[in-house]
Amino acid sequence: MDTLTVIKIGGNVIDNPAALTRFLTSFSSIPGAKILIHGGGKIATQVAEKLGIKTTMVDGRRITDQPMLDVVTMVYGGLVNKQIVAQLQALDVNAIGLTGADAGTVLAIKRPVKDIDYGMVGDIQEVDSGQIQFFLRQDLTPVFAPITYSTAGELLNTNADTMASAIAVDMAHHNNVTLVYCFEKKGVLANPDDDDSVITELNPALYAEHKAAGSINKGMIPKLDNAFKALDNGVAKVIICHADEVASAVQQGAGTTLTK
Amino acid sequence: MDTLTVIKIGGNVIDNPAALTRFLTSFSSIPGAKILIHGGGKIATQVAEKLGIKTTMVDGRRITDQPMLDVVTMVYGGLVNKQIVAQLQALDVNAIGLTGADAGTVLAIKRPVKDIDYGMVGDIQEVDSGQIQFFLRQDLTPVFAPITYSTAGELLNTNADTMASAIAVDMAHHNNVTLVYCFEKKGVLANPDDDDSVITELNPALYAEHKAAGSINKGMIPKLDNAFKALDNGVAKVIICHADEVASAVQQGAGTTLTK
Repeated sequence: MDTLTVIKIGGNVIDNPAALTRFLTSFSSIPGAKILIHGGGKIATQVAEKLGIKTTMVDGRRITDQPMLDVVTMVYGGLVNKQIVAQLQALDVNAIGLTGADAGTVLAIKRPVKDIDYGMVGDIQEVDSGQIQFFLRQDLTPVFAPITYSTAGELLNTNADTMASAIAVDMAHHNNVTLVYCFEKKGVLANPDDDDSVITELNPALYAEHKAAGSINKGMIPKLDNAFKALDNGVAKVIICHADEVASAVQQGAGTTLTK
Repeated sequence: MDTLTVIKIGGNVIDNPAALTRFLTSFSSIPGAKILIHGGGKIATQVAEKLGIKTTMVDGRRITDQPMLDVVTMVYGGLVNKQIVAQLQALDVNAIGLTGADAGTVLAIKRPVKDIDYGMVGDIQEVDSGQIQFFLRQDLTPVFAPITYSTAGELLNTNADTMASAIAVDMAHHNNVTLVYCFEKKGVLANPDDDDSVITELNPALYAEHKAAGSINKGMIPKLDNAFKALDNGVAKVIICHADEVASAVQQGAGTTLTK
């Protein structure tokens, strides 16, 4: 099986042009097939504000009404995605920017309304890994914005972490997949106040201990749950690392490596 | 040689959701390989206004400074492009939205400053028709936003008519290409005040007569010059027609057909 690196980059890096350029330079040096999934960052909220579109939060989660979906489509699917693609081209990476709608790569359904109506939010149904394979075989590097689509022709806002793990799991049918979550810390920290307290290897038992002790904090929990689930579903390796160190994390093992 | 239909759709149709849906439905019924290039419409100007970005015009032409380029990238490369792709997916067309930066399909250079600095505007240097061929062979339908890129990693605003003819001319090395310009009239009119005065066939001599008589007006002249140049450069057929009639124009010859 060919190796494939699936990398998710978060909003904090997107919001900082110098950090984004450092990340993309590091990313471009990773050999072999790779896929990038980017989050959104604060630009969407800023653009929405300027356009007079109110951000509605319920229980800490953003509600995506149609005007907000339009902003997300503009900012994530347009501005952020195409700037990354153009920068990668200049770094000699033949990038192709995609939403899930493009070439039908990531199909979703609009989240059913139970207690909360999240609006135009997609729950992933199917990744067309054959189609993505076909891009990789042409030496193209897919760059995904966190947007999917429904069979009804709707665009749907989708969590970038979830999209990254769904793509990684599905690609694991064809490839030996390493899934990498990049963010602004050097890895999962044993002490959230000490940036150098990186846990180099984390297994489910150790993860449970850190959760019980409270040293792994709220924001990391859904990310890690997602990551362990990817390991259970065929992904060979999961790494959590600083965006600046993505190449050395993939090649030499910087950051936190998750094991079963 | 396989046939290929390259279709350009203008801003007036983009601005009218019902007209856009009618066009896309007609487009989806055209058999064989096809490529869509869309213009921008007024949404970019409206979004720029709301964001407090001033539109600067020199001699009737828009100057694209960096903030305006960001708006163009958001609106054309994001909102308009992805809405078209999602709608086509629902019509069973496996569309893939692209700017020239994606997969390195349309490379440009930033227009050199002579009398006027147009800003972030691209003059097309090279179309990678081999790459586009590869999408077509996979039964994908490329949908291009009028944005190109430079080797320096810049995104560049590019005229959609020019982009359509550049793509058509380059694809003519591989395919028997019909280039179609869709707009809100039934074709080139002999009398601009009579919507039914469509000139069904237009050759260079007749075009010169109409220009001399003033019956072919200002806005049509660059479009027609572009179109005749495409014919001179290997495109097999050029049609100018109403957006609603694109399928019948391609299959039965509605609108105006240009001949050498």
